[in-house]
Amino acid sequence: MNAAYAGIDVGGTSVKSLVVDEEGKILDEDSRESHPDGIVELVQEVAAQLVERTPQISGIGVITPGIVDAEAGVVHYASNLKLSNVALAAEVAQASARPARLDHDGRGAGFAESFYGAAKEWASSVVVPIGTGISAALCFPDRVWEGETFQAGEIGHIPVYPGGEACSCGQRGCLEVYASARNIGLRYATRTGKPPSAREVERCLGKDPLADEVWAEATEALALVLAQLTFTLDPGAFVIAGGLSGAGDKLLTPVRKALSRHLAWREPPPVVASRLGAMVGRWGAAVLGCKAAGSLSYEAWHV
Amino acid sequence: MNAAYAGIDVGGTSVKSLVVDEEGKILDEDSRESHPDGIVELVQEVAAQLVERTPQISGIGVITPGIVDAEAGVVHYASNLKLSNVALAAEVAQASARPARLDHDGRGAGFAESFYGAAKEWASSVVVPIGTGISAALCFPDRVWEGETFQAGEIGHIPVYPGGEACSCGQRGCLEVYASARNIGLRYATRTGKPPSAREVERCLGKDPLADEVWAEATEALALVLAQLTFTLDPGAFVIAGGLSGAGDKLLTPVRKALSRHLAWREPPPVVASRLGAMVGRWGAAVLGCKAAGSLSYEAWHV
Repeated sequence: MNAAYAGIDVGGTSVKSLVVDEEGKILDEDSRESHPDGIVELVQEVAAQLVERTPQISGIGVITPGIVDAEAGVVHYASNLKLSNVALAAEVAQASARPARLDHDGRGAGFAESFYGAAKEWASSVVVPIGTGISAALCFPDRVWEGETFQAGEIGHIPVYPGGEACSCGQRGCLEVYASARNIGLRYATRTGKPPSAREVERCLGKDPLADEVWAEATEALALVLAQLTFTLDPGAFVIAGGLSGAGDKLLTPVRKALSRHLAWREPPPVVASRLGAMVGRWGAAVLGCKAAGSLSYEAWHV
Repeated sequence: MNAAYAGIDVGGTSVKSLVVDEEGKILDEDSRESHPDGIVELVQEVAAQLVERTPQISGIGVITPGIVDAEAGVVHYASNLKLSNVALAAEVAQASARPARLDHDGRGAGFAESFYGAAKEWASSVVVPIGTGISAALCFPDRVWEGETFQAGEIGHIPVYPGGEACSCGQRGCLEVYASARNIGLRYATRTGKPPSAREVERCLGKDPLADEVWAEATEALALVLAQLTFTLDPGAFVIAGGLSGAGDKLLTPVRKALSRHLAWREPPPVVASRLGAMVGRWGAAVLGCKAAGSLSYEAWHV
């Protein structure tokens, strides 16, 4: 019987799981509602059930938001999950009797997109999930960089317009203020009185000048930060992920144009959409499961 | 007889060299005027003379500005040196009959500062030389990142104030406009009619409000970009290098204060001054010389 590998994507509203075989074929896929209270017990339960359903699982990967020390297997702090200094890798390993590894959800997603997703053809890339917030996974040929204090990739709080609009973080002019899905919706609602939804803004593009305005402010702010990242990192490509990436070319075309404008004297890196979509976290976690089992078979997966 | 290693730092106005022994003790140190015309021949001549004076040299490292492919040993493009697609590593190896390696001057400096200079105690750092321009070497635990197209670290052209003052590069609001040593001098000269010199501005701090103003604009712009880099990379420390770092605490203190202000909800990384000063390029090149010879003895150097 072939080995199998499990990945668990832990969030504040759902815990999603995936089990794949040596070739990356999906054997099991599930999602359960979650709540910050009792989240560790829920993850342990999910891990135990995955192993019960697929006993040949030989490694489990887990990803969470927050400040995560992958090497130690510890969630230092995750406000959305109400976790503080929890050795989650060890908890999962104990509940499942399988080796387990932990990493940050953004880095897991970055790993999946850069190693066998949208950015596979480049040696390096920056994967940018845009949803309630905005972050970045910095993908290098051999690693996704975690930062000296496990806080790399917090690009949502880059001061894109110094002294600009107030952000919920207490600073001003942060990228997230203008370009997170949440704030695109809120800024449109403030100007129009309509319900706050980025999807609604997207739907009204070309019909409502206020929607066009809010969208243009978002894509311009995003392009400015991608220009900063290009000057700094010179990545092979940018991969736009998360909820907002569902807008496809409505988002990517104006971002590409603005990025070219801000990079007058050099080629801009390609800006592409996530290939793994809502599954990206689970695929990243499954790779970790593979690594936990000491296997490199994920290198041959074709997603 | 112990082995020795040579480093050559190639610039548009001087070619500087260093020869060290296994323990990192300096055996030879030199500097010669240079000119872009005939620069390859000059570097070959310098290499040949170094080997003549110290025959036990077993590897030579060379660093240049521009777009440099270290793996191929090729300078793709260096406007200051009028070089385009020159296999400089091979040219030096031929002239000296020694193995030679090439890298970018900024990355070489970064390597030296991060591995045995001011940032030795951190796993990662960003080394920022400030002179005529501003660049950055992104130092990770095992490498200095070169970028997908060998253009990482061009932070001087980050649009720190979108739509701000015009830069010589054709864009607006670039960091360099406000904070390069050259432009600090020029902006002060424009406001006062005095000769354009950053050193003069530094000398007048606390006595001339216009000097204070120009200096504050420079340190604020620099701190904004260091904040961006902190959110993105979360480095262990920033090392300020190059000519302007000679200002010491007059520069570092306001930069640290402004950086803390822009990082309201997290600890700022330490901002320290270069330890290797004007020798940093040559030390980086000497490490390359060591690597060219297949030696790891630079790991034990104490500079």
